[in-house]
Amino acid sequence: MTFGLVPVILAGLIAVAYGVVTTRQVMALPQGNERMREIAGAIQEGAKAYLGRQYTTITLVGLVVLVGLAFFFRDWIPATGFAVGAILSGAAGYVGMLISVRANVRTTEAASRSLAGGLDVAFKSGAVTGMLVAGLALLGISVFFLVLTGPVGLEPADRRVINGLIALSLGASLISVFARLGGGIFTKGADVGGDLVGKVEAGIPEDDPRNAATIADNVGDNVGDCAGMAADLFETYVVTIAATMVLGSILFADTILLGVNGEVSDFTAVERFMLYPLAIGGSCILTSIVGTYFVKLSSGSTNVMGALYKGLIVTGLFSILALAIVTALITPFGETYDVVSADGEGMRSFTGLSLFLCGLVGLVVTALIVWVTEYYTGTRYKPVRSVALASESGHGTNVIQGLAVAMEATAWPALIIIAGIMTTFGLAGLYGIAVAVTTMLALAGMIVALDAFGPVTDNAGGIAEMAELDGAVRDTTDALDAVGNTTKAVTKGYAIGSAGLGALVLFAAYAEDLRYFAANPDRYPFFQGVTPDYSLINPYVIVGLFAGGLLPFLFGAMAMKAVGKAASRIVEEVRRQFRENPGIMDRTVKPDYARAVSILTGAAIRQMIVPSLLPILGPLVVYAVVGTVATKADALAAVGAMLMGVIVTGLFLALSMTAGGGAWDNAKKYIEDGNHGGKGSEAHKAAVTGDTVGDPYKDTAGPAVNPMIKITNIVALLLLAYLASLGA
Amino acid sequence: MTFGLVPVILAGLIAVAYGVVTTRQVMALPQGNERMREIAGAIQEGAKAYLGRQYTTITLVGLVVLVGLAFFFRDWIPATGFAVGAILSGAAGYVGMLISVRANVRTTEAASRSLAGGLDVAFKSGAVTGMLVAGLALLGISVFFLVLTGPVGLEPADRRVINGLIALSLGASLISVFARLGGGIFTKGADVGGDLVGKVEAGIPEDDPRNAATIADNVGDNVGDCAGMAADLFETYVVTIAATMVLGSILFADTILLGVNGEVSDFTAVERFMLYPLAIGGSCILTSIVGTYFVKLSSGSTNVMGALYKGLIVTGLFSILALAIVTALITPFGETYDVVSADGEGMRSFTGLSLFLCGLVGLVVTALIVWVTEYYTGTRYKPVRSVALASESGHGTNVIQGLAVAMEATAWPALIIIAGIMTTFGLAGLYGIAVAVTTMLALAGMIVALDAFGPVTDNAGGIAEMAELDGAVRDTTDALDAVGNTTKAVTKGYAIGSAGLGALVLFAAYAEDLRYFAANPDRYPFFQGVTPDYSLINPYVIVGLFAGGLLPFLFGAMAMKAVGKAASRIVEEVRRQFRENPGIMDRTVKPDYARAVSILTGAAIRQMIVPSLLPILGPLVVYAVVGTVATKADALAAVGAMLMGVIVTGLFLALSMTAGGGAWDNAKKYIEDGNHGGKGSEAHKAAVTGDTVGDPYKDTAGPAVNPMIKITNIVALLLLAYLASLGA
Repeated sequence: MTFGLVPVILAGLIAVAYGVVTTRQVMALPQGNERMREIAGAIQEGAKAYLGRQYTTITLVGLVVLVGLAFFFRDWIPATGFAVGAILSGAAGYVGMLISVRANVRTTEAASRSLAGGLDVAFKSGAVTGMLVAGLALLGISVFFLVLTGPVGLEPADRRVINGLIALSLGASLISVFARLGGGIFTKGADVGGDLVGKVEAGIPEDDPRNAATIADNVGDNVGDCAGMAADLFETYVVTIAATMVLGSILFADTILLGVNGEVSDFTAVERFMLYPLAIGGSCILTSIVGTYFVKLSSGSTNVMGALYKGLIVTGLFSILALAIVTALITPFGETYDVVSADGEGMRSFTGLSLFLCGLVGLVVTALIVWVTEYYTGTRYKPVRSVALASESGHGTNVIQGLAVAMEATAWPALIIIAGIMTTFGLAGLYGIAVAVTTMLALAGMIVALDAFGPVTDNAGGIAEMAELDGAVRDTTDALDAVGNTTKAVTKGYAIGSAGLGALVLFAAYAEDLRYFAANPDRYPFFQGVTPDYSLINPYVIVGLFAGGLLPFLFGAMAMKAVGKAASRIVEEVRRQFRENPGIMDRTVKPDYARAVSILTGAAIRQMIVPSLLPILGPLVVYAVVGTVATKADALAAVGAMLMGVIVTGLFLALSMTAGGGAWDNAKKYIEDGNHGGKGSEAHKAAVTGDTVGDPYKDTAGPAVNPMIKITNIVALLLLAYLASLGA
Repeated sequence: MTFGLVPVILAGLIAVAYGVVTTRQVMALPQGNERMREIAGAIQEGAKAYLGRQYTTITLVGLVVLVGLAFFFRDWIPATGFAVGAILSGAAGYVGMLISVRANVRTTEAASRSLAGGLDVAFKSGAVTGMLVAGLALLGISVFFLVLTGPVGLEPADRRVINGLIALSLGASLISVFARLGGGIFTKGADVGGDLVGKVEAGIPEDDPRNAATIADNVGDNVGDCAGMAADLFETYVVTIAATMVLGSILFADTILLGVNGEVSDFTAVERFMLYPLAIGGSCILTSIVGTYFVKLSSGSTNVMGALYKGLIVTGLFSILALAIVTALITPFGETYDVVSADGEGMRSFTGLSLFLCGLVGLVVTALIVWVTEYYTGTRYKPVRSVALASESGHGTNVIQGLAVAMEATAWPALIIIAGIMTTFGLAGLYGIAVAVTTMLALAGMIVALDAFGPVTDNAGGIAEMAELDGAVRDTTDALDAVGNTTKAVTKGYAIGSAGLGALVLFAAYAEDLRYFAANPDRYPFFQGVTPDYSLINPYVIVGLFAGGLLPFLFGAMAMKAVGKAASRIVEEVRRQFRENPGIMDRTVKPDYARAVSILTGAAIRQMIVPSLLPILGPLVVYAVVGTVATKADALAAVGAMLMGVIVTGLFLALSMTAGGGAWDNAKKYIEDGNHGGKGSEAHKAAVTGDTVGDPYKDTAGPAVNPMIKITNIVALLLLAYLASLGA
């Protein structure tokens, strides 16, 4: 076991090393003129100030949870796991933000020379964040697992190990929901508020230095799209791999492996199936790093998207090879496994080849979801163009068409996920589904790189505008930024699709865990006679489904409202500055950027607390309420159903919000490119309205639903673990 | 049994008689001046033309289904049931529309004298529709049931009777989804298109006679809000009562009743529990009729809403009494029933009192949902005011806040439904839930009356405007119309809440039906060894949940798009008329209203077909696909899960769409009342955008989700019935 973990840890270290080396390269690049450095400095300061306050707040909440874990479990392992998950997730986001706010100005400078240069800096900075996310996540789990199974001397499938992994996931999830939500409120509050008061009221262009909200807007790109996204995918990565390990440990607890010659293998099934997801993660980090070197614009080409996709496709192809090698080493292709489920009812067999194929399905699902998202959000296809066309008849029809596209955009991803579930379950049961999701997530390094590229180019454009550089520079950064919008939408589709599937794995872990406890009441006396009926015929299951289905809607409502409130604070503040300092408008006085950042920081932090508590308290409340009127088994069944409810509505809501937002955004861009009357036309005004609506949809509420779904699931798993730790 | 049905049939006849008498009263009223009669004539003609084409199209689809039923079942009963359901549903909508298009002008005339007079005519017309809906629905089921169990000589629980009831529900559902969707597309296409081209482009007021879309808009109110709503509630009523009867016949198949003295009762449990929902329906028709007489404005009062609520409350209170009497007669309060479920596992006991309490819970749920919907859509409360306030900062923030309110508005109804399920299941099991929904629906007569009041007053205002009557008349009709907006929103909340609960009953019927078949493989050889696992752990259940969850999103997207398309047709047509006939603008030439109606008719009919087929084909496709890769049992489990999936996302989507639409509409009204700058202000323009977005949300997509949910369920039930009819 220990032997198998070494290469995984090495892969994680290589990712971190890649991050360090690449950061040095980026930092060595020129930062442009003094004005540019000054602006970048303000953004850096604002981002650090915001993340500082955000992390302080999260630390307080985190300490409460930490103490709670230590108190309820009376064991150091869950509390430690929680701390590891939280600290590493925070670190990945923070470091990503640090490089992002330094790469922006360097991208502007590079873009003033060539498009290829701008792409190179921006993508490298994104790649640092991407590799840190994947590397730190993998290191966190594998080192923690190594410590527990090595020096501490626990069996891999020991409950204390499992609890530690679940708590580690909770740590990551907690950071993630706060970072996604807080960052999302901040960035969209600044964006919506700044546009309203600047573009609409004062009639000055976007990113105009006279607008006190501009620095905040650029800060927002970094804390929302970069740090928030990083925390989100860190979490999905950790949670998926941990859940696959947990599932492996439960499903194969009684599996005895016979070697090819019939002798009992001393590398147990549990060990293999707990190591397998880690190995997939490790190998795909390497293929992701290889892929980054293929992201290059050939001289004269302007196909930025093509360059990025080249890197992604190379990573994908190498990953197939890596997957084959890893599978061959850990679960040889021809070996057959029989799985007996804990209650002795289910029985199925599959081979190593089946697992390889499941991984392949994961890659295919990724490719298809990327393609569908691009279809729904790209300016070349019908959906975006239909929104642009609808803008001609007014604001209302733009929004109607956008909402229609948003809802429609859920169909294909849902069908792809359904096909993925059916195929992989057919191949290798629940564990097969888990392997597919793990493989999907294993590409996270590369995917985050594509995504984190977006805020850097967005900032680069803002800096060019504010530093009043030559128009050609802005054109170059705009070209990069347009691609950034698409990659942001595409990675969101990926994040949500994988989160939906990852949540299913979590749900499976919940159900299998519970089944295992109930089958061993001697060790887990609380579960004596508890056989939850998850059947849809059980009304408490229906209650759970409705209660779970409700959470994403309520959470989304709160997130949207929070953006509205934050935006109105910014509008008031910028108005006040214009009013009290007429010099701002004629450029003799500089606006007070820091105050806008500080106001927004306060608003975002305050508004993120309550919605973030929803998924934490939800399962506990359902357990308590149903437990009061019905049996323990009913209460646990209701909690299980709640997990499914939150996945079902959450998946559709998140998919529709992110796709719709992307479509609105690009419909505006499409009009700005000169279609339907171009910039300044009535259609453009309508498209701006759609874009404003889409902002909190795609950057606040939609993506924050991801971690929300998973927190609900993890809290439920921890609830089980706690109940299992109780005496009779 | 026959004896018990007589009072039910009598109650249905009384409702129809009430309709006839009240129609005579309304028709005897004066119709105003020639111009008003002319306008009303055009609306009548348009509405008849539209419904004529709609019903022709539905008849074609219906004939296919009819032949299919006859062919697959090789029995005249399902085909006949289907025809009865479809014809009566169509009749209720059609007759409701006929009275509605005649009451509109009489309401205008009465409103020119007094507010109380206007209210009286409009409400009476609504009450005719309401009583016809409830009366015809009840007559349809009870007479059909009487014929089958009397002259035809079948046992009440005979499969052929059950299949007949299910087919009758399908007939009602089919009409309903087409009527809701077609009518919804028509009315909102006219509304959105007419406003865009009239108010926004040409700068003429709403309902201005120069706008060629005005007649179409008024026609739309009648075919969408009146005929569509009538078909929807007819369907929910029929489906709920039929499902409760089916559930009663299955759940109590083996229950032997002992009288108070211990002797076996000759009024079997199945008979009692099949009669009970019919009796609740019959008695509440009478209390609804009583309630209508309490809707009166005391002289000098202007509290229209209060007058309407008085009627509703009186109906509610009398219904409690009626429920007590009916319960005492059919299932005496003190009598205890033990229910053995078909697989012999479940066993619970409840008393007649429990059933009475379940009915009471149904009434309480109705009251709470009405209250919550009013909170979210009334101008006096925070949600609507927050949308109005957000309009100050622009179109985008209005829409963002509206969407937030829409999503938030799902929370309380969901919690109320959850509480309702838990309470009634605790009281009397699945049948208890069914009784609660039946009682909710039993008030449909009164509720439809409140709703159908809306389009009449809306039309009355339009006629006042077009006939260029004194401003005071328009003010009076506006006062009535404002209340109409609230009652429309409130009844939609009720319709969706009850549909959600009704769908649960259908799902229960599906599951129990299947359990029954599987337990009797000698009679139903197809189900030999088929024991579907509805457990959420079964991946095919998850597949079904996702597939079901997808339907409302896709259906909603199609409905929204259809409105957009229909509206753009209208915009083009009105523009063309203005362009080709400059005389229209200076009032020398009348626009071609009929052409606008005809164009819209074509667009609405074409666009309603595909989405309506989604819920019909959905369960069949899932059964076929899962059946191909997995077992029969898995396929049936996936279909069952699909039903729950469609209920879960459908409920939330429909609730949020209707509440959000109502909030946007009234936020605009609130601003027009002089707040935030009043009519013509920037805030007002933003509010108009929100209202436009809300139109297809609340009047097309949202309400059409209701019948869609139920069709999916009924098709699944029929699929089961068909499989059961197969040989080995």
